[in-house]
Amino acid sequence: MDSVTIIAVASIITAGLTTGIGCMFPALSEGKAVSAALGSISQQPDAAPTITRTLFVGLAMIESTAIYCFVVSMILIFANPFWNFIVQ
Amino acid sequence: MDSVTIIAVASIITAGLTTGIGCMFPALSEGKAVSAALGSISQQPDAAPTITRTLFVGLAMIESTAIYCFVVSMILIFANPFWNFIVQ
Amino acid sequence: MDSVTIIAVASIITAGLTTGIGCMFPALSEGKAVSAALGSISQQPDAAPTITRTLFVGLAMIESTAIYCFVVSMILIFANPFWNFIVQ
Amino acid sequence: MDSVTIIAVASIITAGLTTGIGCMFPALSEGKAVSAALGSISQQPDAAPTITRTLFVGLAMIESTAIYCFVVSMILIFANPFWNFIVQ
Amino acid sequence: MDSVTIIAVASIITAGLTTGIGCMFPALSEGKAVSAALGSISQQPDAAPTITRTLFVGLAMIESTAIYCFVVSMILIFANPFWNFIVQ
Amino acid sequence: MDSVTIIAVASIITAGLTTGIGCMFPALSEGKAVSAALGSISQQPDAAPTITRTLFVGLAMIESTAIYCFVVSMILIFANPFWNFIVQ
Amino acid sequence: MDSVTIIAVASIITAGLTTGIGCMFPALSEGKAVSAALGSISQQPDAAPTITRTLFVGLAMIESTAIYCFVVSMILIFANPFWNFIVQ
Amino acid sequence: MDSVTIIAVASIITAGLTTGIGCMFPALSEGKAVSAALGSISQQPDAAPTITRTLFVGLAMIESTAIYCFVVSMILIFANPFWNFIVQ
Amino acid sequence: MDSVTIIAVASIITAGLTTGIGCMFPALSEGKAVSAALGSISQQPDAAPTITRTLFVGLAMIESTAIYCFVVSMILIFANPFWNFIVQ
Amino acid sequence: MDSVTIIAVASIITAGLTTGIGCMFPALSEGKAVSAALGSISQQPDAAPTITRTLFVGLAMIESTAIYCFVVSMILIFANPFWNFIVQ
Amino acid sequence: MDSVTIIAVASIITAGLTTGIGCMFPALSEGKAVSAALGSISQQPDAAPTITRTLFVGLAMIESTAIYCFVVSMILIFANPFWNFIVQ
Amino acid sequence: MDSVTIIAVASIITAGLTTGIGCMFPALSEGKAVSAALGSISQQPDAAPTITRTLFVGLAMIESTAIYCFVVSMILIFANPFWNFIVQ
Amino acid sequence: MDSVTIIAVASIITAGLTTGIGCMFPALSEGKAVSAALGSISQQPDAAPTITRTLFVGLAMIESTAIYCFVVSMILIFANPFWNFIVQ
Amino acid sequence: MDSVTIIAVASIITAGLTTGIGCMFPALSEGKAVSAALGSISQQPDAAPTITRTLFVGLAMIESTAIYCFVVSMILIFANPFWNFIVQ
Repeated sequence: MDSVTIIAVASIITAGLTTGIGCMFPALSEGKAVSAALGSISQQPDAAPTITRTLFVGLAMIESTAIYCFVVSMILIFANPFWNFIVQ
Repeated sequence: MDSVTIIAVASIITAGLTTGIGCMFPALSEGKAVSAALGSISQQPDAAPTITRTLFVGLAMIESTAIYCFVVSMILIFANPFWNFIVQ
Repeated sequence: MDSVTIIAVASIITAGLTTGIGCMFPALSEGKAVSAALGSISQQPDAAPTITRTLFVGLAMIESTAIYCFVVSMILIFANPFWNFIVQ
Repeated sequence: MDSVTIIAVASIITAGLTTGIGCMFPALSEGKAVSAALGSISQQPDAAPTITRTLFVGLAMIESTAIYCFVVSMILIFANPFWNFIVQ
Repeated sequence: MDSVTIIAVASIITAGLTTGIGCMFPALSEGKAVSAALGSISQQPDAAPTITRTLFVGLAMIESTAIYCFVVSMILIFANPFWNFIVQ
Repeated sequence: MDSVTIIAVASIITAGLTTGIGCMFPALSEGKAVSAALGSISQQPDAAPTITRTLFVGLAMIESTAIYCFVVSMILIFANPFWNFIVQ
Repeated sequence: MDSVTIIAVASIITAGLTTGIGCMFPALSEGKAVSAALGSISQQPDAAPTITRTLFVGLAMIESTAIYCFVVSMILIFANPFWNFIVQ
Repeated sequence: MDSVTIIAVASIITAGLTTGIGCMFPALSEGKAVSAALGSISQQPDAAPTITRTLFVGLAMIESTAIYCFVVSMILIFANPFWNFIVQ
Repeated sequence: MDSVTIIAVASIITAGLTTGIGCMFPALSEGKAVSAALGSISQQPDAAPTITRTLFVGLAMIESTAIYCFVVSMILIFANPFWNFIVQ
Repeated sequence: MDSVTIIAVASIITAGLTTGIGCMFPALSEGKAVSAALGSISQQPDAAPTITRTLFVGLAMIESTAIYCFVVSMILIFANPFWNFIVQ
Repeated sequence: MDSVTIIAVASIITAGLTTGIGCMFPALSEGKAVSAALGSISQQPDAAPTITRTLFVGLAMIESTAIYCFVVSMILIFANPFWNFIVQ
Repeated sequence: MDSVTIIAVASIITAGLTTGIGCMFPALSEGKAVSAALGSISQQPDAAPTITRTLFVGLAMIESTAIYCFVVSMILIFANPFWNFIVQ
Repeated sequence: MDSVTIIAVASIITAGLTTGIGCMFPALSEGKAVSAALGSISQQPDAAPTITRTLFVGLAMIESTAIYCFVVSMILIFANPFWNFIVQ
Repeated sequence: MDSVTIIAVASIITAGLTTGIGCMFPALSEGKAVSAALGSISQQPDAAPTITRTLFVGLAMIESTAIYCFVVSMILIFANPFWNFIVQ
């Protein structure tokens, strides 16, 4: 195996696993937050606007961690400095 | 094994595992959200429209993490830059 | 092992595992949603139509993640671009 | 090991594991749904027909994920395109 | 190791593990369903016939996933197409 | 290692593990069912006959999955077709 | 390593692990059943004979799965057909 | 490594692990039973003799699974038929 | 494999895994905090401003641990001193 | 590595692990029993003598499983028949 | 692989994993503390200043363990004595 | 590697792991017992002497399992019969 | 690999993992203690000084275990006797 | 690798892991004890002196298991008899 191949393989596997692993817990966490929001609305329907607003801010924060992982995957696939160095 | 084979194998395995792993927790999470929504409706039937609307927004957010993984798999299968470089 | 064999083996194993792993949590999740629906119906029989409708929308969303995995398996078995490139 | 043997072995192991793993969680999930149905019937005997009907729809949905895995196993054993290509 | 031996070994191990793994969760699940049925009977003795009938339908569904695994094991031991191809 | 030895070893290990793994969850599950039965009897002593009868049917169903595993082990030890083919 | 040694080693390890693993969950399960029985007796001292009798039947069923494993271990140590074939 | 060494090593490791693993869950289970007995006595001091008697029968049953493992270990160390065959 | 390749591969894999693993628990934790906030708002709507403010401070603290991991990944990809030493 | 060394190494590692693993759950279990005893005493101070006596019998039973493991370790270190055979 | 490469690789991997692993539980723990604080505020709004102050002290203590790991990573990347010894 | 080295290495690793693993659950268990004692004292301050005495007996029993592991480690480091045999 | 390199690598990896692993549970544990303190303050605001003081003593004890690990890491990096022996 | 290097490496890794693993559960356990103490104080502020005293005795017992591990690590680093034998 030459260097080009090894770095390509490592980038492919890492990109896939980073997104695969990194999206697990944000998904779990958003489900938890949505469940709590639904329970809260059914318990206190009058506070629905406040609950919804807090939920969306929270979902944005949680989604951000999933996006970090997605960004790292995209960097490894399309803007990988090690790959650029090797294939020059 | 030549370079073409290795990169093809790595892409196949990574594409499968990324979707396989990455769909686990979104599914779990959507089940949790749906369960909470059903519990909330049965507890407060009058708030059903608000609950349903919040549920659908939440499911869309959760589904988005599964779709990130699916997108990475599709990129690895059909638009893999490392594969394109090798098979040129 | 020549290239054709390796890619075939990788495709077979990945296709099986992707479906096998990817169907675990949707199944678990649907069971959770159905359980919640049954509990809700027994608690509030009058809301059965709303509950059933929300349940079916939720099951469709959850089933979709299982279908992503099944689709990736089918692509790997019957429309694998790497295999097509090799066996040309 | 020649190509025929390797692909046969990979198909056998994958077929077995796909069914073995893929049937775990549907079974667990059906048990959960049945338990919830039994609890609901004992709590609200009058709603038994609605509960039973919803249970059967839910069991069918859950069983479908087990059947995806069984179908993939059967394809790998009896309609494996890679095997057909090799043994031609 | 010649091809016959390898395929025999793979079939033996896979057949054993498929049944071994595949019977774990159906057993767990049936235990759950039976427990729920017993709890429901003690809570609502008048609904015992409905509960028993629903239990038996549910046990049949759950047992079916165990039987898929047992069937795959039996196919691998007594009607294995790869083995038949090799020993011809 | 010649073929006879390999197949013998694979059969021994698989037979042991199949029974060992396959008896874990039925045991757990029977314990759960018995516990539920005992709790139900103490809660509703008048329903003891119905509970006992349902318990025995349930234990028989659960035991059946343990017996599938035991049967596969016995087939692998005493009626193994691959072994018979090799030692002929 | 000659064949006799390999089969002896495989038999020793498998015999030990089968009993070791196979006795874990029956023990756990009997503990659960005994706990439930003790709780039931303290809750309903009048039903002690029925509880004790049901407990003993249940313990016998659970013990049976541990005994399957013990039997397989004993067969592998003292009546192993593969060993008998080899050392003839 | 000659045959005598290999079988001795396998016997040593298996004997240790069988006892080590096989004593875990009986210990856990006895702790559970004792806890339940203590809780029951504090809840219903009048039933102490019945509780104690049932506890001792249960502990004996649970201890028996630990003893199976201990017996297998002792057989492997002091009455190992494979070892006897080899060192003759 | 020459030194440049090895260090590149190690950096790629480590960068991906650090972000992938390091984002799991912050996401989980933020979901927990958001859930608690939503539950608290529905329970005590008057304290919403205090709750929201405390939530945002807490989310910032939790996000900081995810950012440590992201920073380490970025250092490994774009400002790696070992890589700079080697490629000089 | 000669036979003496291998058997010594296997004995050392097994002796350590058997005690290490085998003492985990008895410790856990005794903690559980002691906790239950303390809870029972605080709930029913009058039954303290009965509780203490039952606790000590239970602790003795649980300790016995830890002692089985300790005994096996001591046998492997100081009265190992395989070692004695080899170093003769 | 020469010494420089090996030490560089070990430093890269260790630095990444130390931060990745070491940030998991502090994040989890801060989420727990924040959740508890939010629950406490909603339960006792008058004690909000005391709660907030105690929360911040606690978060600082928890964050300190994450910072130990971050510090070790930074030492391994930028002030590694072993690296400095080798590249002299 | 000569025999002296191997046995030294095995003794070092085993001694460390035995203490490391063997101290985990006693610590956990003592924490549980202390927690129960504290809860019992706050619930029934009058029974504090009895609770404290029972706690100390229990802690002594639990500590004894940790000490078995520590003793085995010390034997392996300072009174290892295999080491003494080799270095004679 | 020469001795200097090996010992450097082992020291780097061990130092990182010891801190990484050793900081996990103290962090978890401090989060638990802080949560309990916050819950206690909200429940009994008058006892806040006693609670805070006990909390700080407890955090110091817990932090000490994290510091043991940090100290071992620092010893391995900056005062390693094995390294000093080798590089003399 | 010569003997000195191997023993040094084994000592380094074991010393680190023993402290790293061995400090996990004591930390967890102390957190549990502190939490219980805080809960008890808030529930029964009058018993604070007794609770605090029992807590400190308990923490000392728990800390002792962490110290056993730390002592073993220190022995392996600074008073290792195997190392002393080799480097003489």
